[in-house]
Amino acid sequence: MIPFQPILNSLKSYEAGKPIELVVREFGIDPHQVIKLGSNENPFGCAQPVVEAVQKAASTMSYYPDDSYLDLKTALGERFGVTPDRIIPGNGSDQVLDFACRCVLGPGDPILINRITFAMYKIYALQCGAKVHSTETVPHDLNAFLDLTKSVRPKIIFLCTPSNPVGDALDKSDVYEFLRRIPQDTLVVIDAAYMEFGNKKDPNKFIPAKEVTDLFPNVFYTGTFSKVYGLGGMRIGYGIGNKELISNLYKMRPPFSVANLSALAATTALQNESHVESYLENNLNEMKRYESFAQEEQIEFMNSYANFITLFARKNGKTSTEIAQSLLRQGIILRDLKSYELGALRITIGRPDQNDRVLDALRREFA
Amino acid sequence: MIPFQPILNSLKSYEAGKPIELVVREFGIDPHQVIKLGSNENPFGCAQPVVEAVQKAASTMSYYPDDSYLDLKTALGERFGVTPDRIIPGNGSDQVLDFACRCVLGPGDPILINRITFAMYKIYALQCGAKVHSTETVPHDLNAFLDLTKSVRPKIIFLCTPSNPVGDALDKSDVYEFLRRIPQDTLVVIDAAYMEFGNKKDPNKFIPAKEVTDLFPNVFYTGTFSKVYGLGGMRIGYGIGNKELISNLYKMRPPFSVANLSALAATTALQNESHVESYLENNLNEMKRYESFAQEEQIEFMNSYANFITLFARKNGKTSTEIAQSLLRQGIILRDLKSYELGALRITIGRPDQNDRVLDALRREFA
Repeated sequence: MIPFQPILNSLKSYEAGKPIELVVREFGIDPHQVIKLGSNENPFGCAQPVVEAVQKAASTMSYYPDDSYLDLKTALGERFGVTPDRIIPGNGSDQVLDFACRCVLGPGDPILINRITFAMYKIYALQCGAKVHSTETVPHDLNAFLDLTKSVRPKIIFLCTPSNPVGDALDKSDVYEFLRRIPQDTLVVIDAAYMEFGNKKDPNKFIPAKEVTDLFPNVFYTGTFSKVYGLGGMRIGYGIGNKELISNLYKMRPPFSVANLSALAATTALQNESHVESYLENNLNEMKRYESFAQEEQIEFMNSYANFITLFARKNGKTSTEIAQSLLRQGIILRDLKSYELGALRITIGRPDQNDRVLDALRREFA
Repeated sequence: MIPFQPILNSLKSYEAGKPIELVVREFGIDPHQVIKLGSNENPFGCAQPVVEAVQKAASTMSYYPDDSYLDLKTALGERFGVTPDRIIPGNGSDQVLDFACRCVLGPGDPILINRITFAMYKIYALQCGAKVHSTETVPHDLNAFLDLTKSVRPKIIFLCTPSNPVGDALDKSDVYEFLRRIPQDTLVVIDAAYMEFGNKKDPNKFIPAKEVTDLFPNVFYTGTFSKVYGLGGMRIGYGIGNKELISNLYKMRPPFSVANLSALAATTALQNESHVESYLENNLNEMKRYESFAQEEQIEFMNSYANFITLFARKNGKTSTEIAQSLLRQGIILRDLKSYELGALRITIGRPDQNDRVLDALRREFA
C-alpha cells in the first residue's frame, strides 16, 4: 500500500459536461444529430483559417513546441497591449489557475470564492490543502466579498466575471473600488473566460487586462481560447499580470504545457477577429429567444453576460435534472447544474437552427 | 507584494532543447535547412494516417475532449493487455509524473533518483517540497539504489530505462530482483519513454507494463507518444498501474488535460505500428554510424538503448558546449548536456540524410 497524501481523501473530481461520444455510446444516437450546448463552446466552431493553419501544420506534430511560446505571447501581447513577459500560457486557463494556487497556497491557507462559481477554483485550492470560504448569494456580491476578506483574510480571491455558471457580471467601477479596499498582498484572480461576451452586451462590464494589472499588481487576469475563439478541444488559455507575478507563476509551469498545434491555432485565431464578432452578434440575438421563452413559461433566470443562459426550470413536478435527462435522450446536451447544487439548467446559446430544436424540445417539456 | 510559497525560491526551470524557431530567430537560418536532433523526436515524423486523421478532425477543435478518453484508453489497453481503468492519460508523460509526485510527496519527503536522469523528476518533487537523493554513477546502478533505499527510505524511486540522457538500460530480471527487495510501500516509477527502442535492441531490457504492475502493485509505469510515435508536439503520454494506484492519481488530474486532436492522434498512431517498426530499424542501423565515428575519434560513449547517443566529446581544448554552439550556427541542433552537469553532447539518431550532415559537421570539428 502506497501511503498517499491524506488530502486525497477529501478531493472530488470535476464533473465535466457530457461529450457527444457519451450520448452516442449510451443512446445510440447518430453523432451528427447530437446538439451539444452543455459546455459553452462556440457553436460555429473556430474560424476557417484556424482550421486550415492546423491542417497545414499537421505534419509538424513530431516537434516539441517552442517552449518560449513567443509567437503566441507576442500576438496576445498585441491584443492586450502588454509585453510578452506579462503573459503566461496554459493548458487551458485551468492550468494557469492551478499555477496561481500552487504558488500561493499552503496547507490551511484560506481562499475566498463566490457561492456559485467555476468548480475548479475549489478543486485546485483543495489540492494544495487550502481552506475554502465562500459567499452566500448566487450572483457575485462584492460587499459580501469585502466583509469576508476582513474576517477570513484570504490569500486568494477568485472573481469570475461574467460568471460561470449563472452569467452575472460585475461593473468595472465596482471591481476597481473593491480592489482599492482590500489588502494589497491578497492575490485577486479575475477569471475573464467570458469577458468578450460581457463587453459586447455592456461595456461597463469590460475589465481591460492591462489597465487592471497596471493599477493593481495583485491582480491575475485569466482568459481562454475555449469560448469565443472556439478552441475548447485544444486546451489553451493564458494569464496576464505584472512581470513579477508572472515570473513567479512560471516557476510552477511544466515545460511544453501547450501543444504546438494548439499554440498555432490560438495565434491564428487572434488574427481572425471577424469570426468572433459575428459569433458575438449571434449570441446576443439568440439569447433573447431563450429569455422570451423563459418569460412565457415563467421560468426564473438571470440576465446573462456570457454565452449561455441559466434557467431555474422545473415543471409539473419534473426537476431540472429530469428535464435535462429527457432532452439528452433526444440528443440534446444541456448542462444540469445539480453538481453546483442548483436546480437549474445551463444552456449554451447555439446557432439559430440548434436553438430552434432546443426551444421546441423545451416547449414540449413545459406543455 | 503577494506572499508566494517559500519553495518557489529554490525552484529551477527545466532547460528545454532548442526549438527550430530559435535557430531561425538567432541565426537567420532557413527553417527548412535546420536539422533538429536535440530533443529525441522521431525524425520521420508521425505516421501519415495520423496526419490525415488530425487534418480531417481539425474542424472539431471547438469541442472539449471526451474527458473519459475512452477511445485512447481502450486502444492503449489493447496494446498493453490491461483494462482502461489501469491507465491514466497525461499532457505528456510529464504530467503523469507530476500526478505521482503530488499524490505521494509532502514537504521534506525523500525521493531517490539516478545521478544523471530526466530533469523533471527532481523539479516536480521539489515543487512538492520533497528532498531529492541521488546515486553517484552516470548509468543506473541498482545496488546503489538498494543501499540508498535502506538509508534514505524514499517515498518514490524513479528508474528511467532506457535512460535519458545517456542511454543505459536495465535488464528486466535485475529490475524485478530489485523490486522484490525494496519495501512494498515505496512507489517505484518506471519511466519507459524509450522502452520501444530498448526492446528492439535487446529484449532482455523489455519490461512489460502489465506484468510488472501485476507483480508489483507499487510500480507506476509511464510511457509517451513523444518519442517512437512522433507526437512530441501534441503532448500526450500515459501511466499504467494497478487500479487503486490509478484511481488515486486521478484525484490530482485536471479535467481535459489532453487536447482532443492529441488524443485522436495517439489513438490513430497505435493503429499504425508499421511506421514505428521501420523507424526502429533505422534507429538501430544509423546508431552504428555514430558509434563508428566515436570509435574512430576515440570519443567516449555509452552503449545506447534509446533513439540517441551521448558522446563525451571534446577536442583541441573545445568543450562539448562549444562544439554544440558551432553546429548550432550551421543549423544543426544537438543537445548540450551542460545543464545535466555533463561535458557531453546528446545526439538524436536522425534520418540517414540528416546523419550524413551531422557526421560531416562533427568530423570538421574533430579534424
